[in-house]
Amino acid sequence: MHSKNHDHSEFSLSDLQRAIDGKTKPVGSLGRIEELAFQIGAVQETTTPRMQQCQLTIIAADHGVARSGVSAYPQEVTAQMVLNFLAGGAAANSFADTLGVDVRVVDAGVAGDAIQHSDLISRRIGAGTENFAKTSAMSSSQRELALNYGRELPSSDNLDAVCFGEMGIGNTSAATMIGHKLLGLPIRDLVGRGTGLDDAGLANKSALLNTAANRVPGVLSVDEVLTEYGGFEIVIMVGAMLQAATDGKLIVVDGFIASAAAAAAIAYEPASKTNMVFAHFSAEAGHRYVVDALGVRPLLNLGLRLGEGTGALLAWPLLQCAAAMLCDMASFESAGVSGPA
Amino acid sequence: MHSKNHDHSEFSLSDLQRAIDGKTKPVGSLGRIEELAFQIGAVQETTTPRMQQCQLTIIAADHGVARSGVSAYPQEVTAQMVLNFLAGGAAANSFADTLGVDVRVVDAGVAGDAIQHSDLISRRIGAGTENFAKTSAMSSSQRELALNYGRELPSSDNLDAVCFGEMGIGNTSAATMIGHKLLGLPIRDLVGRGTGLDDAGLANKSALLNTAANRVPGVLSVDEVLTEYGGFEIVIMVGAMLQAATDGKLIVVDGFIASAAAAAAIAYEPASKTNMVFAHFSAEAGHRYVVDALGVRPLLNLGLRLGEGTGALLAWPLLQCAAAMLCDMASFESAGVSGPA
Repeated sequence: MHSKNHDHSEFSLSDLQRAIDGKTKPVGSLGRIEELAFQIGAVQETTTPRMQQCQLTIIAADHGVARSGVSAYPQEVTAQMVLNFLAGGAAANSFADTLGVDVRVVDAGVAGDAIQHSDLISRRIGAGTENFAKTSAMSSSQRELALNYGRELPSSDNLDAVCFGEMGIGNTSAATMIGHKLLGLPIRDLVGRGTGLDDAGLANKSALLNTAANRVPGVLSVDEVLTEYGGFEIVIMVGAMLQAATDGKLIVVDGFIASAAAAAAIAYEPASKTNMVFAHFSAEAGHRYVVDALGVRPLLNLGLRLGEGTGALLAWPLLQCAAAMLCDMASFESAGVSGPA
Repeated sequence: MHSKNHDHSEFSLSDLQRAIDGKTKPVGSLGRIEELAFQIGAVQETTTPRMQQCQLTIIAADHGVARSGVSAYPQEVTAQMVLNFLAGGAAANSFADTLGVDVRVVDAGVAGDAIQHSDLISRRIGAGTENFAKTSAMSSSQRELALNYGRELPSSDNLDAVCFGEMGIGNTSAATMIGHKLLGLPIRDLVGRGTGLDDAGLANKSALLNTAANRVPGVLSVDEVLTEYGGFEIVIMVGAMLQAATDGKLIVVDGFIASAAAAAAIAYEPASKTNMVFAHFSAEAGHRYVVDALGVRPLLNLGLRLGEGTGALLAWPLLQCAAAMLCDMASFESAGVSGPA
């Protein structure tokens, strides 16, 4: 989806490709960086794209299914990690600070009493979802509220790209169900160890997710999938991705959970995919099936399985360099460099 | 090789691993970034490594073998690209500027008259090597001069990491011969299209390199390999890598040519490998055989085949984030986050 803010009437995709090919390098020799430059230029409708400001929004919520023992970590870790994000002590903070990316934290529905902190953006849909193994994770009105919260998060025209991270004990289970019901992928391919389940824990998680799948058989709409199995952080992320695409921003998609949110956003609005850069292959087992189903190939493969937007952050410098290639590199003509003999 | 500059008598590798594992994330969930943090901490002998200053040294020279038609581009491009680097117009410049990396350019022996430019570091061994298809690329004394030039390039204690890039029409041919003679890899696996040879050009290059290999049969020492087939830019890079390892700096190794230089540096000094971070899998066909032979796994796989240090630059933010993980992340204990249930 293209930016609606500027007049780019003279822009064409063939001009963009010509600009990339005319830079002082053998054609194609910057590989995926050239593809990324093309994507960024196409979204911004310019041969001199801007890629200077990026923001990470970490969205946290709890999952009722965690009470069925689908995670190696206890549910209170979600709230503890929210405080860690706010104190700047998490991996995402350390990466974001290093890379010059602003971080904000959204409480979408962490279990227990609401966390009080002046920097926390409160968009609580509830104190965690219901246990989707037994009943719908949320109501239709909660889903709509979450989508709207996501669409209406404060944003700035100065942002060129947005990263989304998540925190929520149990949310690989929610993402697995979204991948299963929305993309038609088998649970056995998607289910993984999350934060570090052992073999017995993985078998329990797998059995539970099959039970949850059978609770609502048949083909479901994206609305239904999110209502039945979504997390509040995932649905807010879907809304925020849709708004970012409408606003013409690049969306840097993190790992397994964020890719499930991206799949839902694409189901609502197929054109939003043109704004998405898939950052990395997660080490969470099911992620490669999700990206295959979406027909995308992530940039990095570093064995990350943390979430929080950490993988998206590590891809941000690649977007910056791709834009710099277009804006700052000389052409064969301008630099007086000979082409192939 | 470890830094000799500081007292790290209380440092141990088990403390380093414990520091990494104690950060607020499931153990191992940052994948290769954790491995990188371990390597950086081990080289700097600290659990709080510094990774703030990086420099790219681009070294350029010409190759006599280029006169036998092994490249899609004419030899004059080497000198033209040196001017492009100095003017800030090349891909390496645009990436380095974006990532806050300082760039310097060394003339190791570009063909023709010496380029006059106040910012160019002149370390000319000659006006290009001899054609190694017919005779030795350089003399033993030229090789020693180049190694010493590399060892004695100005350096600064403030640099935490160094990247090396190269420019030299014909230098994938030199790198192929180094990989063949030093690592025992077959020419048919190593030979590739370089800047973009067509099938006929590739067949010609392959035949020529087989002729060159037969000119000096048998097992050669690393000294002999560099004398017979090296490029001046490659040998200076070998010397500079050896010095960087001695100085306790991290060495970010770029693609096919830089990996051939790294292989030679490792042959001279096996411990230098502990300082090396292999940045990316090059799209140049032979690179994966070289990294396999060295027993290393590059971080990125972005289809790059430009050289200039561009791949090394793109890996630099990963080193910064790996160090930040150690320096800035909270521990489970300090943040009051619960561990696995």
